[in-house]
Amino acid sequence: MAKRQVRIGMVGYKFMGKAHSHAYRDLPFYFDNDVQPVMQAIAGRDEAGVKAAADKMGWASYETDWRRLVERDDIDLIDIGSPNNTHAEIAIAAAQAGKHIICEKPLALNADEARRMLEAVDKAGVVHMICHNYRFVPAIRYAKQLIDSGQLGKIYHMRAHYLQDWIMDPDFPLVWRLRKDICGSGTHGDLMAHSIDLARYLTGEITEVSGMMNTFIKQRPLGEMSGGLSAKASGEQVGEVDVDDAVAFICRFDNEAMGVFEATRFGKGNRNTNQFEINGSKGSVRWSMEHMNDLQLYLDTDKEGSQGFRTISCTETIHPYAGAYWPAGHIIGYEHTFINIAHELMQGIAENRSPSPNFEDGYRNQLVLEAVETSSKEKQWVQIPQF
Amino acid sequence: MAKRQVRIGMVGYKFMGKAHSHAYRDLPFYFDNDVQPVMQAIAGRDEAGVKAAADKMGWASYETDWRRLVERDDIDLIDIGSPNNTHAEIAIAAAQAGKHIICEKPLALNADEARRMLEAVDKAGVVHMICHNYRFVPAIRYAKQLIDSGQLGKIYHMRAHYLQDWIMDPDFPLVWRLRKDICGSGTHGDLMAHSIDLARYLTGEITEVSGMMNTFIKQRPLGEMSGGLSAKASGEQVGEVDVDDAVAFICRFDNEAMGVFEATRFGKGNRNTNQFEINGSKGSVRWSMEHMNDLQLYLDTDKEGSQGFRTISCTETIHPYAGAYWPAGHIIGYEHTFINIAHELMQGIAENRSPSPNFEDGYRNQLVLEAVETSSKEKQWVQIPQF
Amino acid sequence: MAKRQVRIGMVGYKFMGKAHSHAYRDLPFYFDNDVQPVMQAIAGRDEAGVKAAADKMGWASYETDWRRLVERDDIDLIDIGSPNNTHAEIAIAAAQAGKHIICEKPLALNADEARRMLEAVDKAGVVHMICHNYRFVPAIRYAKQLIDSGQLGKIYHMRAHYLQDWIMDPDFPLVWRLRKDICGSGTHGDLMAHSIDLARYLTGEITEVSGMMNTFIKQRPLGEMSGGLSAKASGEQVGEVDVDDAVAFICRFDNEAMGVFEATRFGKGNRNTNQFEINGSKGSVRWSMEHMNDLQLYLDTDKEGSQGFRTISCTETIHPYAGAYWPAGHIIGYEHTFINIAHELMQGIAENRSPSPNFEDGYRNQLVLEAVETSSKEKQWVQIPQF
Amino acid sequence: MAKRQVRIGMVGYKFMGKAHSHAYRDLPFYFDNDVQPVMQAIAGRDEAGVKAAADKMGWASYETDWRRLVERDDIDLIDIGSPNNTHAEIAIAAAQAGKHIICEKPLALNADEARRMLEAVDKAGVVHMICHNYRFVPAIRYAKQLIDSGQLGKIYHMRAHYLQDWIMDPDFPLVWRLRKDICGSGTHGDLMAHSIDLARYLTGEITEVSGMMNTFIKQRPLGEMSGGLSAKASGEQVGEVDVDDAVAFICRFDNEAMGVFEATRFGKGNRNTNQFEINGSKGSVRWSMEHMNDLQLYLDTDKEGSQGFRTISCTETIHPYAGAYWPAGHIIGYEHTFINIAHELMQGIAENRSPSPNFEDGYRNQLVLEAVETSSKEKQWVQIPQF
Repeated sequence: MAKRQVRIGMVGYKFMGKAHSHAYRDLPFYFDNDVQPVMQAIAGRDEAGVKAAADKMGWASYETDWRRLVERDDIDLIDIGSPNNTHAEIAIAAAQAGKHIICEKPLALNADEARRMLEAVDKAGVVHMICHNYRFVPAIRYAKQLIDSGQLGKIYHMRAHYLQDWIMDPDFPLVWRLRKDICGSGTHGDLMAHSIDLARYLTGEITEVSGMMNTFIKQRPLGEMSGGLSAKASGEQVGEVDVDDAVAFICRFDNEAMGVFEATRFGKGNRNTNQFEINGSKGSVRWSMEHMNDLQLYLDTDKEGSQGFRTISCTETIHPYAGAYWPAGHIIGYEHTFINIAHELMQGIAENRSPSPNFEDGYRNQLVLEAVETSSKEKQWVQIPQF
Repeated sequence: MAKRQVRIGMVGYKFMGKAHSHAYRDLPFYFDNDVQPVMQAIAGRDEAGVKAAADKMGWASYETDWRRLVERDDIDLIDIGSPNNTHAEIAIAAAQAGKHIICEKPLALNADEARRMLEAVDKAGVVHMICHNYRFVPAIRYAKQLIDSGQLGKIYHMRAHYLQDWIMDPDFPLVWRLRKDICGSGTHGDLMAHSIDLARYLTGEITEVSGMMNTFIKQRPLGEMSGGLSAKASGEQVGEVDVDDAVAFICRFDNEAMGVFEATRFGKGNRNTNQFEINGSKGSVRWSMEHMNDLQLYLDTDKEGSQGFRTISCTETIHPYAGAYWPAGHIIGYEHTFINIAHELMQGIAENRSPSPNFEDGYRNQLVLEAVETSSKEKQWVQIPQF
Repeated sequence: MAKRQVRIGMVGYKFMGKAHSHAYRDLPFYFDNDVQPVMQAIAGRDEAGVKAAADKMGWASYETDWRRLVERDDIDLIDIGSPNNTHAEIAIAAAQAGKHIICEKPLALNADEARRMLEAVDKAGVVHMICHNYRFVPAIRYAKQLIDSGQLGKIYHMRAHYLQDWIMDPDFPLVWRLRKDICGSGTHGDLMAHSIDLARYLTGEITEVSGMMNTFIKQRPLGEMSGGLSAKASGEQVGEVDVDDAVAFICRFDNEAMGVFEATRFGKGNRNTNQFEINGSKGSVRWSMEHMNDLQLYLDTDKEGSQGFRTISCTETIHPYAGAYWPAGHIIGYEHTFINIAHELMQGIAENRSPSPNFEDGYRNQLVLEAVETSSKEKQWVQIPQF
Repeated sequence: MAKRQVRIGMVGYKFMGKAHSHAYRDLPFYFDNDVQPVMQAIAGRDEAGVKAAADKMGWASYETDWRRLVERDDIDLIDIGSPNNTHAEIAIAAAQAGKHIICEKPLALNADEARRMLEAVDKAGVVHMICHNYRFVPAIRYAKQLIDSGQLGKIYHMRAHYLQDWIMDPDFPLVWRLRKDICGSGTHGDLMAHSIDLARYLTGEITEVSGMMNTFIKQRPLGEMSGGLSAKASGEQVGEVDVDDAVAFICRFDNEAMGVFEATRFGKGNRNTNQFEINGSKGSVRWSMEHMNDLQLYLDTDKEGSQGFRTISCTETIHPYAGAYWPAGHIIGYEHTFINIAHELMQGIAENRSPSPNFEDGYRNQLVLEAVETSSKEKQWVQIPQF
């Protein structure tokens, strides 16, 4: 096969590393891209762990220092899935080394870091992308088409919430996802960043916010640092939780639309409830991750008496990405959002352009995240810089 | 008020008596009819019970023998809500006395009785009606309009089930609803009769059936005879259950449509799950009693990619009956089906015609019920006489 | 019947007048109260209109000036369903005349009026109530029982929205519900007041808010003043809309819970979407008006692997009010919330106590409404006075 | 890696070939099996087509005659995904050559073929399996655990339907799936076979059936033979449709449970509606393919007043197979059912046993299919041989 290869070096091999690895592995099965992903090397600090992950997930080699990936000549693309506090350093080094980059969200610990990352990729002229995977759900992409085509009319409202419940037990330990130095924030950067991206994608730019954040459980037992969604406490010692358990904000968009957003890890019973509704002058859409293949659509043009939200299974050939998979009604799942991203990324590299969402989106997202934090701290409305 | 009065004499004052009484009482509040219902008299065998019911529900007088209602000159309409084994005698006597009649379903214990009842009302020229209340749900009536207008195209399929679970406890007593001499059948005449009526209303005449019936609990403690949905066992003695606990049948309609029907009182967790779906060449509808205000509608004419079942809240002025009640989105309930029937009945009496469904519908329903019983007993397909 | 009578004089006979009238009429059918409501007189300015309403709805007499109701010796209870700008004057006069009072929500145009109304009824020692009907939905009342019993644990979150879409057409006229002098506010007092009441009922007192309001369509054709949900424009002239089309706020409760609230009349496709979710440390509940008989309940005590939100049809005898109506699974509707209120009001009068929610609740609600308005205007957090 | 390899030769490369190929490719990523699948060779008659498929899906070689796969020494497992009329010949040859076999459903054109296939694999002592993928949905497998543990009590009812709508256009051509000589039956073997398998898996053995079948559109334009779900008519000529468009049957199980089953390709709006409900004496389950990760569960042991169907997202580590994939609430899709089958098959081969469902299940399924066809033709109940 004479296709140009894109040799990938990935940093991090936990939840996101698994999702990304699978996407690269599965991509050629479903899509015909102009370039071909090659799973070249994976990096992690723990040699036993990273070696096992490389074997299991199909990476050709491994490194125990991400710097080696950046240095290697046989790497074209750096995929950053390590904790948030490592993103900026890795991305900037990779850009300087002329590597293309895809980075997990949130882009950085704060807006300043994000801006520097954007400047670095711009200066280097590499392809860059941020991994907001929900944009790549066929139902959401179809909603975008409906909005862009004007079928919903002028947008008046967006409401979204992203609810989880995995840290509600006070004995759940102080894992790295609950530490500000590593993550920058808690629920905010983890979950709310997704909702903000969908807001920017579907509704418009957010211009001002008023927010609040709270940490319901302020001390937790110290736990294993490697942990994620199923960690165990490792002793009697406790530490301070310095990130938010929950966040909410109201906002205005540049098109006069009003927004209401909420994210929490204290939404008992909500394992992963990521939902939104958008109301326009001519129609509305609703979406929920738990039934991610469905889009609820209301159209004012439906005949009087027969109007209502219809449930569209976005699994037909006409729906974005869906034609690559299975016949109508045979649903896809969470992992396919990453395959779709990988597809867009490979096409971007083939055509030497940065697909959406990219580091500019990551930076704008970070500006909103930071504005909400500032607003929460200072208890006042905060404007988001527009450019 | 100079309106002509329709003076009602009602037999029976339990569940159905309550529903009918409420309907007459509430009717003038919601509808302007050309005639006015007057709650003249109620009949029941137990004097204390019937007197208390009359007071509570607003009947002007009571009788302890239904024959007195038929004899009284100040009664224009006999409403039969007593057990099934009394329907024929009362209805025939009422017809002979020139009274209009509304009768609860099933019309009779068997098709022969039903036929004699139909002959009696035809001969007497009185207005007659059978109380299949689900026809009067706005969502179902709207479905009928959609079908009649051809929006669903040629009908291919109907599937319906009516599931309850109130007699699953083996200690639940042998109440009158579980006795063949009183009811004719069990689940079949009680629940399946409703599904058959909806089938005849929406899809067409059933021409042949293959059915099965079963009695899961064959003996039960003897219980109070007055009981209905919440009776208590009264002793140690047990009796044979001689009616069906559950019934199912497949059938063909006169328009080539295929039907699948099921009813049971052993559907654990289903307090009152009355559902159907109809598929035509151009569209489909789904309905469920638990959300009785909603109709699910699929239309082939929706744009490709935006096709799906839409949920219509049939609470708008344009929907049948809905304009009499509340603004859109303010739902109505079970009892309103009876108010809607009472409205149709009063209009029928005002215009001296028998609204649908009437005794002919009751008789045709009974023919299907009986065919299913025969089919079940003889384990073969049974034709339904068409006329 | 020797029961003490409560003779009612009602002001206003449109949407709410109809709902209240029906409730009084239907109450004795379903409930046995210690006192008996008597529909004595109704008041409205248009004689032809009020006379027709009295006839249709079953009121014994009518007046063209509400003051006559207050003066009449044969009136025990004043029911205020006229526009918001009339509430204070009528209620204070009624209290001074020693009448019991039930008043539609919002209690007043502003908190000062509401406070004076509360002082008046307190001083007069009459029974008073405010008509927040959603508290009387069986599913919501059952949710309250679950919360009070501790089954949901400590409450962390409440999110609620109330969405309608009946004024989205720019040609929809400037009816009285869109005029600040008559209503005080738009969506806020009409819809959000309901959500605030549910928040106070279920979650706790709101201590501070940050809100925003918007008027999407700022000028409308002048329309008939009598109109409500289906008015027509009456000419070419336009007027300024000086009330909100939409409102949203975030808040904190006295128990550390976080709240997110939104109401709009620009939620296309949402005829009457009134929803909330509450998350506690041990469980969660969800409710939606469109399926008002259902409560979604999640309990942490369910076995691992079998945990999930369960849909409870709150139509069983064990559920609040449900035993008065129909067997399990036979749903009730919007109007029954008013019957349940009437039931509580009559019991309150019989026992000479003011049931919840009463004018104190109305006043507290108004304080929240006003704080949101102030917050929106001044773009800052506003504290709600606690007492 | 020292793992024993299982070298696979697959026949057919369309819809099922794609699903199977993907499963083998993805299996090692998610599961650690004791043996390792190797995608050795794929067979198809059209050389260009099979070559392209091999390249695209990752097969190491291809053949244009399935017999070559059976002959090759470097093949351990034959995977049969070609049309139904080829299953028996291939399977019997493969068994005689000592190959393990997995075969798509339905096992054969008729029960006699199926029996011969079962005899062949039994005689050869090879591992065999039939590809009823819905057994491998985590939610369904969890339902099986609940039933087996007795949590639902004695089973009284199962109702299931499988509805599609892809051939409703009369201009849809006479593809091979509509030809009896190739498929044996239409909807029956394609869709109903799945429901029958779930019935046998979850409820018990079916002992007798009464069925009906119908072909709504009896002639169709001749079309391309390769086609499946999206074929085009190729000319003016028409041919007779000799398979069923729709089928329904009622049945009894060996444990007294009653069954109601329906499958159709004429269920407008139902792209792939595969649903069932099972009612037992102590609880019930409901499942639907469109939300395949969810199981609806009702348990009688829930507290009175708090009883209802709960929606369990079977994506937690405790649920079958789910731990191999993503954190709770991150759903999987259709293709994962095949990965789960591949996992079971590899374990079966590792341990030299035939997992369920295997050719015996295929044979028993075929006996039910055939009984329904006979019943439909002869219009009488037909017994299913038990052994």
